[in-house]
Amino acid sequence: MIRFYNGRVMSFQNGVEISDSEVWTDGALISYVGAKRDDMPQFEREIDLNGDLLIPGFKNAHTHSAMTALRSMADDMPLDRWLFEQILPREAKLTDDMVYVLTKLAIMEYLSSGITSCFDMYFHNEAYVKAIIDSGFRTVICSSMNNYDKDYTAIEGEYLRYNSCNERVSYMLGIHAEYTTCIERMEYMAGLIEKYKSPMFAHSSETKSEVLGCIERHGVTPTVLFDKLGMYNYGGGGIHCVHMSDEDIEIFKRRKLWAVLNPASNLKLASGIAPVERFIKEGIGLAIGTDGAASNNALDMFREMYLVTALAKYRESDASACDADKVLQMACVGGARAMGLNDCDCIAAGKKADLTVINLSRPNMRPLNNISKNIVYAGSKENVRLTMVNGAVLYENGEFFIGEDAAKLYAEADKIAETIR
Amino acid sequence: MIRFYNGRVMSFQNGVEISDSEVWTDGALISYVGAKRDDMPQFEREIDLNGDLLIPGFKNAHTHSAMTALRSMADDMPLDRWLFEQILPREAKLTDDMVYVLTKLAIMEYLSSGITSCFDMYFHNEAYVKAIIDSGFRTVICSSMNNYDKDYTAIEGEYLRYNSCNERVSYMLGIHAEYTTCIERMEYMAGLIEKYKSPMFAHSSETKSEVLGCIERHGVTPTVLFDKLGMYNYGGGGIHCVHMSDEDIEIFKRRKLWAVLNPASNLKLASGIAPVERFIKEGIGLAIGTDGAASNNALDMFREMYLVTALAKYRESDASACDADKVLQMACVGGARAMGLNDCDCIAAGKKADLTVINLSRPNMRPLNNISKNIVYAGSKENVRLTMVNGAVLYENGEFFIGEDAAKLYAEADKIAETIR
Repeated sequence: MIRFYNGRVMSFQNGVEISDSEVWTDGALISYVGAKRDDMPQFEREIDLNGDLLIPGFKNAHTHSAMTALRSMADDMPLDRWLFEQILPREAKLTDDMVYVLTKLAIMEYLSSGITSCFDMYFHNEAYVKAIIDSGFRTVICSSMNNYDKDYTAIEGEYLRYNSCNERVSYMLGIHAEYTTCIERMEYMAGLIEKYKSPMFAHSSETKSEVLGCIERHGVTPTVLFDKLGMYNYGGGGIHCVHMSDEDIEIFKRRKLWAVLNPASNLKLASGIAPVERFIKEGIGLAIGTDGAASNNALDMFREMYLVTALAKYRESDASACDADKVLQMACVGGARAMGLNDCDCIAAGKKADLTVINLSRPNMRPLNNISKNIVYAGSKENVRLTMVNGAVLYENGEFFIGEDAAKLYAEADKIAETIR
Repeated sequence: MIRFYNGRVMSFQNGVEISDSEVWTDGALISYVGAKRDDMPQFEREIDLNGDLLIPGFKNAHTHSAMTALRSMADDMPLDRWLFEQILPREAKLTDDMVYVLTKLAIMEYLSSGITSCFDMYFHNEAYVKAIIDSGFRTVICSSMNNYDKDYTAIEGEYLRYNSCNERVSYMLGIHAEYTTCIERMEYMAGLIEKYKSPMFAHSSETKSEVLGCIERHGVTPTVLFDKLGMYNYGGGGIHCVHMSDEDIEIFKRRKLWAVLNPASNLKLASGIAPVERFIKEGIGLAIGTDGAASNNALDMFREMYLVTALAKYRESDASACDADKVLQMACVGGARAMGLNDCDCIAAGKKADLTVINLSRPNMRPLNNISKNIVYAGSKENVRLTMVNGAVLYENGEFFIGEDAAKLYAEADKIAETIR
């Protein structure tokens, strides 16, 4: 059992309200949230928060973890050259062993940013899952059906295997995107969705040309197409959602779909700015992702949170758009629910102990006029004091506890980058 | 004498080229840059860079340091309410003692972001200068002439005093903005500029309504007005430069003026995005500022650098716009030259020892595919290992060496925020 005391807690049981509760964990779970008690059990560790803030960890609701290999390898060029000349040929060279190392590097970066789980869409899933399990991290894999997989029916096997292999791993159905997947394969996916009554996620409405291309090919937008095919019968959502029609938004409302925002990637690849303020007004559920390190290039929830609100303010020409509380809610709670991690969405007894300690004793967090605004508008990785996943401290005061030496991983990642260059 | 060795150096003598040189300092100056030598002097300290990167410190080319008091006190509201209801009434309550503490808090944040000097425009300059001198930081003050100063002729006295009081303090002429300064005062400023042959800086073309208001009042844009009045006869520049006409840009080229970019502030206050790519194509000198903590809310050069390029890419719908090397150049070199700190612009013998060590052994800096892209696209405050100003280490491994206890300053800043609330 671990005890967090002498600090602040933003539990998200009542929005961004802050209390001075203690939080105890027992194994993978939170066992108690409340006032100091006389009948205290024997703790294996007592962590003096010293005024710092405990929050449910950030959820990275869209990423391609192993793309860390490609960070800074292919920037400052147009999107098509970036993808076809730089990214795809190098991804083709990745092996299982490489994905294992590159995923661990991504996990370290997540932890350093207070992120406790990620919603990942990539390949080499066996190596990916091993990296997750070995390091103690939590993931939801999203299948990435597309036209290039030889045996697309393997997804059903993956669905069954990765939903039962480890308590920190789960698997959700998804296709890569409309523009990479033919109708026959999408229909097969719709069948799986019906069979397992599963939500479905896909890259969707990321660029204007993607939407126009879909209308040309199918007469409708990606959202409308997915819905017509029955892929949204059990919920799910879209990743990016930058260029959305009124009809798309109606479908999101009706189907209770999630829009996963990736503002840094959309900005850097010049894709556009998602209509976040409209999503909020329409009551659409929102989550935040970093996207992969090749397009962002940071795996940093602080950057994303700042951009979600600052870009909404810019887009609406209204400095009051999308306030900080709403953004924190997306990062801590929205992500969890979008990913089906309903036991990771708040700090309450019985929930998973996926927790982050925000260091408030840094210049960017003072004065303490408003803690949630401080985090969203001024926070950075320097404010992550501790990250706990499933009851285990995986990161604290700059050090990683993922069962492997950081320097060794850095050297291996550099070697991989050389190999695929 | 201090020796940096066993690392990498981006000196900016040849752009972003990286060497494995050693760098020695002697007092306030860099005394040697080059290969390891046999005739080594006695060093008071030898710093093993262990592969990390030494760069000229970042220059924060526009800020209002003491506005740290107002961080997160007045966000998520329209610009006019933000300024008139929240900011101005509280600023009026600030005293010298408060400005001293609040400036030190800002200096800590600058140091934690690798910033070695700032171009500041505020009031209570005597207290401000004392905080700078006491903490070891470097500043250039920009006078903030406006209609509200009782005795605007005091600026000449400040100009003389703050240009000779301390080697780490200098003073440049400026007006707050066209919309806060009447023609008579601007003409007085033009006289001072002529007398001292001084560059001039002003908030300029920040919002569309400011430019339209100026055209209504004076028939021309702020830039044209300043130029007509002779205020740009000896150079200087504009702060923000978001809404620029062709004629404005022509004047910037002809007068060799600097455009000081403040992307985070412009975004969060919904002011717009500066035409950075056009500035680059026209050869206009660029520097980067954080603006004050009330509008940003972070004093973080990593955030600004990312936004300068990501927003340029978005604005131009071109992912190849404004590459990372150019942004680093603005932050390290451009700022120095805009601020008149020509002895702080690169790492070379005889230049000031204003240096920052970037920690490359963090997950966000790996693999080392391209170090300048890593810094601009993925860097954060966690990557600042050490910040040195004028030969003295003021920040290292998260600790501050500014002659005052951090915890005490945090508590004082909180108290001030309570007082002016």
